[in-house]
Amino acid sequence: MSIIMMTSTVLTAAETSDWLKTHDEYLILTHRRPDGDTVGCAGALAQGLREHGKVAYVLYNPETTPRYLRFVEDYEAPNGYKPECIITIDTASYDLFPKNGSEYIGSISLCIDHHPSNALYAEYTCLDGSCASCGEIIFEILLSLNGSVSALSAERLYVALSTDTGCFAFANTTANTLRVASLLVEAGAPQRELNRLLFRTKTHSRIKIEGLIFSGLEFYYGGSAAISIITRRMMEETGATEDDIDDISSIPGSIEGVLTGITIRELTSERDCKVSVRSGPTVNSHDICKRFGGGGHPMAAGFSLELSVLEIKESLLDVLADFFPSRVK
Amino acid sequence: MSIIMMTSTVLTAAETSDWLKTHDEYLILTHRRPDGDTVGCAGALAQGLREHGKVAYVLYNPETTPRYLRFVEDYEAPNGYKPECIITIDTASYDLFPKNGSEYIGSISLCIDHHPSNALYAEYTCLDGSCASCGEIIFEILLSLNGSVSALSAERLYVALSTDTGCFAFANTTANTLRVASLLVEAGAPQRELNRLLFRTKTHSRIKIEGLIFSGLEFYYGGSAAISIITRRMMEETGATEDDIDDISSIPGSIEGVLTGITIRELTSERDCKVSVRSGPTVNSHDICKRFGGGGHPMAAGFSLELSVLEIKESLLDVLADFFPSRVK
Repeated sequence: MSIIMMTSTVLTAAETSDWLKTHDEYLILTHRRPDGDTVGCAGALAQGLREHGKVAYVLYNPETTPRYLRFVEDYEAPNGYKPECIITIDTASYDLFPKNGSEYIGSISLCIDHHPSNALYAEYTCLDGSCASCGEIIFEILLSLNGSVSALSAERLYVALSTDTGCFAFANTTANTLRVASLLVEAGAPQRELNRLLFRTKTHSRIKIEGLIFSGLEFYYGGSAAISIITRRMMEETGATEDDIDDISSIPGSIEGVLTGITIRELTSERDCKVSVRSGPTVNSHDICKRFGGGGHPMAAGFSLELSVLEIKESLLDVLADFFPSRVK
Repeated sequence: MSIIMMTSTVLTAAETSDWLKTHDEYLILTHRRPDGDTVGCAGALAQGLREHGKVAYVLYNPETTPRYLRFVEDYEAPNGYKPECIITIDTASYDLFPKNGSEYIGSISLCIDHHPSNALYAEYTCLDGSCASCGEIIFEILLSLNGSVSALSAERLYVALSTDTGCFAFANTTANTLRVASLLVEAGAPQRELNRLLFRTKTHSRIKIEGLIFSGLEFYYGGSAAISIITRRMMEETGATEDDIDDISSIPGSIEGVLTGITIRELTSERDCKVSVRSGPTVNSHDICKRFGGGGHPMAAGFSLELSVLEIKESLLDVLADFFPSRVK
């Protein structure tokens, strides 16, 4: 029997900046099903490294990258690019690697992350679990690296901060998030246009699918738990794409009186479902998802199962009984 | 014929703080149909003045104050209170005075406002049209007055900043708004609880009336203009209260492709309507509303008319022809 220990040297933002100066050719990986934080940070870091005279590219995953994050194409690695160092961003463990990044498992030089659950799989890790977004960490690294943050990096980082905090409304937002956001706007992040695009524009398909979700919401445990179901058929009927349902898992948790909001979504088939759990401070979403082999943050977590929507719902309702012991299903 | 000139001495935030030190008993007025900015600022200023040893009350208007702003009751003036000075907040002209404040018209000592259109009706005016919210101005005044902002004042001011900017997502948000918000959170504003209450909680009635609004949206001028109608009957059917439809006028402007979003709402009768116009930077909402005797900001303005919803809609569509000359209604 052999025990494999994960060991990683933990670096501060300033030490990470010093480390970045000592190498020359980078490839930056985002996590699978990339969101604004991982892609925004990857773009900002590649940009900042280039401004420092380094070669830096992002491993681009066109299939699963939302339309509003396609700016990352500008940093796409050319065929045959052989980087000196691989960096991962916002990626807590190997499970979260993108499919086209699996070849790099075991050879990550640096991981920059804000998940306290980070598996410390990289040679060096820059981790700050108190940050709402990885963007806040990248901001400090770039400030240390270049003395300032360029307008282009600021734009990418504003995407990271604002999408990970629901435009500064989610419970993970801190004074530091707002402080960094203010400095990014001063540095030239076009926050008016970004806010309109990211938070204040609904497509016609989005409105239709929201209508279906709201009218289909189910409430349990005296209204403390709300379950939203998104089937493949609902997506087809409304013409909704991935872009249209971005952040849709926040809906059930936004209803008055709901302590835990759950979204069950069919992906590639009726027996391939993704579950998102959102909660306030009184219920631990991570603990609920751990029971199904998943995890995340205390107020936002998830898991995937090869079961039907109804089977998952029944299992979830049983598990929720442990979290709402005084209430009747 | 006599011409009455309005003259007012304009003060900076620091000068306003100095002026506040020279008097002792204050009454603070909010504008009619009070919102988070006017009430949050009034509460914060009363609190800050009391911390400085002054007597300060707010003229409270229970009928039209949303539930989430009822903290202002704590500052309600006792019967027979005779203040030395009257202060108005976020109130650009006499037209916007609350009904129970009309007796003070002509005797306002100080007006603190962020509307560039301010009529300069007060003896002294502290005006900064670059601020997204009056809260940013009050923050500077309190900092100058007391050297710091207390947790209670910070809480009130966070309500002011966040509600006037749709939690920092509206186009009026600036680097300064985010900077002040960060300092308010550091000073103890409970932003998690406030964000959840103000931005992330929808009542069951809200969901129902949103559903009616979305399904009833009308699009004109090739999708550039969207009109939403809220009748008294819709309010009755869904059980919606004023609190439930707070900020509902942002809905039509949030649809993809819409440049001007208009909400027409029946108030006390079928011939008493309030119209809210919201737009991006390419269309001037204030100019549209001026044609009906109203006004406001370039991207958010309004007016009231004693006509039916349909009559107002037809007039608006005619006026919009001047704003979308290249498009067919």
